[in-house]
This record gives sequence, C-alpha cells and structure tokens, in this order.
Amino acid sequence: MSKPKTAITPTRADDFPEWYQQVIKAADMAENSPVRGCMIIKPYGYAVWENMQRVFDDMIKELGVQNAYFPLLIPLEFISREAQHVEGFAKECAVVTHHRLEKGPDGKLQPAPAAKLEEPFVIRPTSETIIGDAMSRWIQSYRDLPLKLNQWCNVMRWEMRTRMFLRTSEFLWQEGHNAFETAEGAREDALKMLDAYADFAENTLALPVIKGEKTADERFPGAIMTYTIEAMMQDGKALQAGTSHDLGHNFAKSIGIKFQGRDGSEQYAHTTSWGISTRLIGAMIMAHGDDDGMIMPPRIAPHHVVVIPIVRDDSNSAALTDYAQKLKARLKEKGVRVHVDDTDERTPNKMWSAIKRGVPIRVEIGGREMDEGTLTYIRRDIGKDSKKTVSVDEFVNSVQGVLDDMHKNIFEKAKATRDGSITDVASLKEVEEFYKANKFGFVRFDTKLLQDPSFEKMKSDYSLTTRCMPLADGGKTVIVGKAY
Amino acid sequence: MSKPKTAITPTRADDFPEWYQQVIKAADMAENSPVRGCMIIKPYGYAVWENMQRVFDDMIKELGVQNAYFPLLIPLEFISREAQHVEGFAKECAVVTHHRLEKGPDGKLQPAPAAKLEEPFVIRPTSETIIGDAMSRWIQSYRDLPLKLNQWCNVMRWEMRTRMFLRTSEFLWQEGHNAFETAEGAREDALKMLDAYADFAENTLALPVIKGEKTADERFPGAIMTYTIEAMMQDGKALQAGTSHDLGHNFAKSIGIKFQGRDGSEQYAHTTSWGISTRLIGAMIMAHGDDDGMIMPPRIAPHHVVVIPIVRDDSNSAALTDYAQKLKARLKEKGVRVHVDDTDERTPNKMWSAIKRGVPIRVEIGGREMDEGTLTYIRRDIGKDSKKTVSVDEFVNSVQGVLDDMHKNIFEKAKATRDGSITDVASLKEVEEFYKANKFGFVRFDTKLLQDPSFEKMKSDYSLTTRCMPLADGGKTVIVGKAY
Repeated sequence: MSKPKTAITPTRADDFPEWYQQVIKAADMAENSPVRGCMIIKPYGYAVWENMQRVFDDMIKELGVQNAYFPLLIPLEFISREAQHVEGFAKECAVVTHHRLEKGPDGKLQPAPAAKLEEPFVIRPTSETIIGDAMSRWIQSYRDLPLKLNQWCNVMRWEMRTRMFLRTSEFLWQEGHNAFETAEGAREDALKMLDAYADFAENTLALPVIKGEKTADERFPGAIMTYTIEAMMQDGKALQAGTSHDLGHNFAKSIGIKFQGRDGSEQYAHTTSWGISTRLIGAMIMAHGDDDGMIMPPRIAPHHVVVIPIVRDDSNSAALTDYAQKLKARLKEKGVRVHVDDTDERTPNKMWSAIKRGVPIRVEIGGREMDEGTLTYIRRDIGKDSKKTVSVDEFVNSVQGVLDDMHKNIFEKAKATRDGSITDVASLKEVEEFYKANKFGFVRFDTKLLQDPSFEKMKSDYSLTTRCMPLADGGKTVIVGKAY
Repeated sequence: MSKPKTAITPTRADDFPEWYQQVIKAADMAENSPVRGCMIIKPYGYAVWENMQRVFDDMIKELGVQNAYFPLLIPLEFISREAQHVEGFAKECAVVTHHRLEKGPDGKLQPAPAAKLEEPFVIRPTSETIIGDAMSRWIQSYRDLPLKLNQWCNVMRWEMRTRMFLRTSEFLWQEGHNAFETAEGAREDALKMLDAYADFAENTLALPVIKGEKTADERFPGAIMTYTIEAMMQDGKALQAGTSHDLGHNFAKSIGIKFQGRDGSEQYAHTTSWGISTRLIGAMIMAHGDDDGMIMPPRIAPHHVVVIPIVRDDSNSAALTDYAQKLKARLKEKGVRVHVDDTDERTPNKMWSAIKRGVPIRVEIGGREMDEGTLTYIRRDIGKDSKKTVSVDEFVNSVQGVLDDMHKNIFEKAKATRDGSITDVASLKEVEEFYKANKFGFVRFDTKLLQDPSFEKMKSDYSLTTRCMPLADGGKTVIVGKAY
C-alpha cells in the first residue's frame, strides 16, 4: 500500500459526504438521535456552540441588541398573517394538536381525544410573527425605536433529508428581530448585521465568506431583501452561513407594528431579522477538516491545547501529571483553554484522539522534557513539520501568537481555495459546460443572464442555485453553484 | 391619606399575589403571551436568567459536568418505559401529531391529514428517557463512569393554572443527568448537586433555603429519593427552588443503561437528575421585593449601578453625560455592570424606574457633584437613609463592598423572617389550629405524625403540603406549609 494512511476513512477525495459524517463521529461531536431528523449534540460539539455563542453574543450586545425569550409554540393564526411567510413554512411545521396522553384500547399511549386543542399550535420554525406581535404592544412612539431583540433558542422545520449540523429538523440558532422608524434604518441595519456575521465568520471561525444579496426567488419568505454570507466548502459546494433580512413594511403591516411618528402621524415600523445556527459547525468542519479529522479554528476550539504526559513507566507518572497540571495552570492564566489527557489510554491513542478532534496545539511531555523544563508541541494545521521543543516559559509566552498564526493560516488556506475556484463566464453555455465537466467551485457572471429563460432548466439539470449577488460587485454579477 | 404612597399597588400586605404580578410589570421583566400558559421573558428579566446561567454553569463545570443538547421531541415509546414516570407526566404533555399544515375546506390552516405521524411525539417535559437512551449507547464499561451531562433548554408541561415565572406551560431550565457505577456514588452525587443548589441560592441569589428529603408521595416520578431546597416567600408560603433526584436503578433498568463492571460482570448504572429553572426568578421577587418593587440580589443584577445625570438645563448636559460615561468606564474595569440612564425622561421617572427594577445602587450626579468630583448614591435595600455623597475614587474603590453588604443584608433579612416563621408543634391538632388561625409560615413536627391517617384530610382542607424532612434534623422532623 503506497497510499498514506489517514485517520478518517474515506478521504475527502474518495467520498466527501461520508468523510464529513466520519469526521463528526471521530471527533465525537454529534450523533443521530432516535427522533427522526433530530441530532444529539455531544459535549465536544456543544462546547463549540457555547464558544460561538459567547463571542457572537458579546458582539450583538455591543450593537445594542437585547436578549429575550418568546414562546416555543406559535398559534396558527399568527403564522398565517404574512402570506408569503406561511407559504414558505407551512409545509415543514411540527404541529401540536393535543395536551395530554392517555392509554388507548390497545394499552398503548395515545393523544387523549378529550384533550384535543381547539386551535393547534406549530413549533416555531422562526419567530417573526410572535415577536412581531410583542413589538406591536411594546412600540408606541418613535422614541421606542430602534428596538433590537434577539433570542438563542431551538427551532423546528420538518426536513425530509437531513444531515448532521447542516440540515436537521430541530436546530439551535439565534434569531434577531429589530424594528426601525424608517426604511433606510432597516436597510442599514440588515447590512450592519450582515457585516457582523462576516466579521464573526472570518475573524472567529476562520471561514472566508462572500457578502451578497440573494436573488428574489431565494429570499426569506416575506422579506423585501435577503442578504447572505456564502462560504465554499472543500468539495467546491456553497454553504449559506448566515442571513440578514430586510422585511420592509411586510410584517409590520400584517401584524400591526405601528408607532406615532415625529410628526404625530401613525406609521408602520420597518423590521429586520437575522440568524445564524449550529449549521456553522458543519461549515467549519467542511471548510477546515482534513483526512485526519477536524481542524478547530482556535478562537472557538473547546481546548486550545491538549497536554499528553508520555508515561514510560509508573515511576514518573505522578511527577509528569504534576508537571502537566502546573503547565495548565500557567496557560489558564493567559486565557488558554487546556485539557490534560491523563487517562490510562495508550499514548498513540491519545495523540490520534487529539488529532481527530482538531485540537489546535498538541503538547507532549516526557521525562526528558520534565527534567529540562521544556515541552514538545505540534500544530494541528501543519502537523509533524511544526514539531518543536521549547522551554515552558517560551511556550507560555508565545502560545497566543501560535494560535493567532494558526487562525490566519487556516483562513488564508480556505480563502486561497475559494478565490481560486470562482470562474468567470460570459454565457450560460459556459455555465453548462463548467458543471457538465464536473468542474470545481462557483461560476460568476453578469446578472443580466439571469433573465435568460433557459437558466431555470439548467439550474434544475445540474442542481445549481444562485448563491448571491456580491455586494463588492455592486450587484452587477451573480455567483452560482451547487450547495448544501 | 396617612398611608405612605408606594410605587406598587396593591402592597404586599393588601394582596400578595397581585403585588407579585405588578412588580413583574413595573420592573418590565416578563408578560403573558398570546400562547395560553406561556410567558414572554422580557430583556430585563432575561438578563437575570443569563446571569444565573453564567454563575451556575461555571459551578457545574467545576464539578465535572459537560453540557450537551438532546432532542426537544420524545417518542411516546420512550416516555412509556418507566411506569411511574409516564404516570407522572402523561397528563400534561404537549403532543405533536402532524408535520405539515395545509389549507382546509374553510380556507384556514389545519394540520394536513396526509402528514399525520405514525408515532406521535411529546415535547419534552423532562429528558430522563431520551438522555438515558443516549447513555445506554455511550456507557460500555466502568471506565466510562461517572458520566455527567447537563442541558440548558426549554421544557413544556401543560399547566392549567399558570403564574409568571412560577408555573408556566413552557419554562427554561437546566437538567443534569449523571450516571454512576454504584448506588453510593449516585446517592452522594444527588446530595452534592443539592449542596450546589443551596450554595447557588444562598450565595448568589441571597435566598435562604432548607435542604431536605421529600416524603415518598412528593418524589419525582421514577425516583427512589428526591432532595429539595425549600425557600419561604414573604407571605409565608413555601417555594421549591430546586430538586435533585436519586433515580437508583429505575431508569437504568427500564432504558438499559448497562456497563461491564470491574469484575467483568454486566451491571446497571445508577443515575441522578437535578434541575433548577426560571421559577427561581419568581422566588427572588417574592423573597426580596418590597412595596416599591423589585430588589435585585446584586450578584445576578443585570445592572449593579444605574447612573442618573440630573440635568437642570441644557448647558451642562453634555458634560454630565461625559462625567457619567467616564464613571461607567472606571466601574466596568472593576467588573461592575453599569447602566447610564441618559434618556430624555424626567429625573423622578428615572429614579422610580431604577427603584422598581431593583437596581442595587442608584447614583445621581448633578452640576455640583461634577464640579467637586463626587457623586451621590442610594442603596435600593435601605433607601433614603443610605444616601451618601462621596468622591468618585472612594465610590469606585468601595462599590464591590457595598454590593457584598447589600447581598448579606437581604439574605439575613429573608433568613430572619424565615427562621422566625417556623413553628414547632407536637400534634396534628396544633397543625390544624395553626392554619385555621391563618398563621404565617411553616410548621415542623415529628415525622412519626405523618403516619396519622387524619393528616391527608388536613392537607386537603388547608391546602398544605409536606415540604421536606430537613437534612439538618437527620430526617426526624418534617416541615409542612402552603406552597407555590
């Protein structure tokens, strides 16, 4: 076998979708649950989400957003209010119809017929309507605006084909809902939240994204404009990583979010909504992972550093553990998240576990290191070639720089791949040739070509979608690709 | 009118339940939602929950607990597995029966008959069964134990009579689920989590609690032992503030949580579960609030300090705001959460708003203070008598001590009331006389009296419940009272 052995089977080149599932399994991040379409987020995966929440929550609070919590259940009458909205979500709603169980004739539990609800509820697929209803009570005057609300919660959209993190019936997200006095205020806000998402994706997750407008047919149901950040995965497919919607007057009118304006007249508010979800964890895996498993962006890594004491015999085991714990304490003071792997697993298993979980820096300490006051470390993004033995002092002082460099490195790598995989074309014929030949990445062309009636058939033939009209191009071009 | 005017009408003495609702409204913490039995937690109330989460989450992580996330929906087959468990929860389950909506003959949305689920789901009322199912896959050997999992999530129990924070159909909580090798391990853990709750209630929420065992009929459905922390509200009623359950073998056997023991034999795990919820916010309000509104325990107060610039004319408004912002920056460095109220509301309204919201320290600054480099502050728990003018430096250096003193003060006050309101009685006749005379607080008596058959009728006649058998008394006494 001349092929190098990898920790993950299959490799990305062999079967990217299956590689993705295997990385999640090997990193112990999540698993499918007995509830169809729903996943269990395991502790290591959930720790990533917690870190994401902390960073992004701080960002939105700086922007004047307040967290709150609204009911899980939404009355049917609410979801019906905005015509496009209900059209977009009714097909995938989990419906609550009863409020009690009882034993049926066969002795098995069943919904109690006497406890049938007069009006059923849906489990929120998103909360524009119920939060809008609260806003209609809370907003009286222009002085109450802007009002910026957010909730971190679970939502449910009944999906037929699911994939862990990327598309599950239940997922975790944040949904922001802001209201403004003017149309310009809402538009500016939608763009400001898009900027926050791009900042978060690039500077926290090391995920390069393209900011753009969605085409009309890809807009959020009920929005007058949807903005998106689009990322490219290592198989050349697009992943929508966050969206920000300018809802204009639509929800305000259908729900009745009115206020007394500066001139005393009654006016409708202009609202926005914006969301990112646990799907970002999937995006990170597919953007950064390699054939040995996950590569964690350092700024959200559950552990920045894993320390593996290499015990040769029992005689120095206690001293090594002590050495490791002291190192941990010093690093913790610097804000570095450290895990000391002092289980009784074999050393190679510990090393591979750290690799598969994508821990940014693996530290190995043995008797020699302990005697010399040094340690040996290896960066996950570079591997063996980065192996270095340095003094503990030097490591403690330089570790933040190493993490920052790793962030930069994996970002630049993903960006180079992405930038090199956008092909400019001048005609739809070239688009067809590109995807017929199974070429890698996105195509970009003049938005005028979107009017060509043959484009719809091409999208369907090659499973293409318009990803966005990049803001950087001023809406003159559109990016098209296959997508998750 | 000789009666002093209060910010809240009615007063506690006049109508405690209504006072409670009015405090929530005046502090802008929550409101009822259009979804029957569900509340909206408004930003100021949600900020309290966020602070609670941060503190308690750090505590449990120190105890080796890992956060994770499990599905919202639970298959009926799961909830049926543990006989007592299903008996306890089936009566109040929201049931999902369909996964799509469509327009009915009347043009209104209805659950699509073709999208009826073969097996309905319930929205989790608690997650012992679905987390236990995951544990049965994750635990293979004694080396995998203990396993300590927790999730912060929403749960739903269909309640007929609801009261904001205290009893709502949907509420937010944390539910911990731990598994152990031995019965002793589980018992110790249930007690350890009880200790963590008592520590959190007393040292973070300033809420004195009694740790105790529940009597058998008050146990969690499926538990072999339920421990509780019980608090007393200002109307003398009890409030169960947190529970920790030793589930023994029950769930492990019904779900199949097995492991290979040290001797190679197959054994069942011993599990615990433990939870606290947004109900604690209600407890805080009813334990600490006064006739002017909320009194926030400083350690979870959304704002420790509110700064009110007292603008006499427009000439010094900018300078005062600047003075306030500089003060805020200095306090923030010390970890103090500060809100500068620079809206254009009238000064008395700002003061009353801070009082009703229970902000621990109100700082007022006017032209004179600014000229002298001083500020005037008033403690919420003491009021006018605590008014003091000090230099900014002195305030910045002493503010943490003031907050700590306020914590101590409101804790001691609640504890004195509670301790003075537990009446020892020697017979059930005395119990009856106590509650017949509408006396205030709890009664405590020998657990042997629980065997008296007349006790059941008395409980029902006077709406009494056994609150707990205090651990401090070694199970020899029981505390009885009216309760929320």
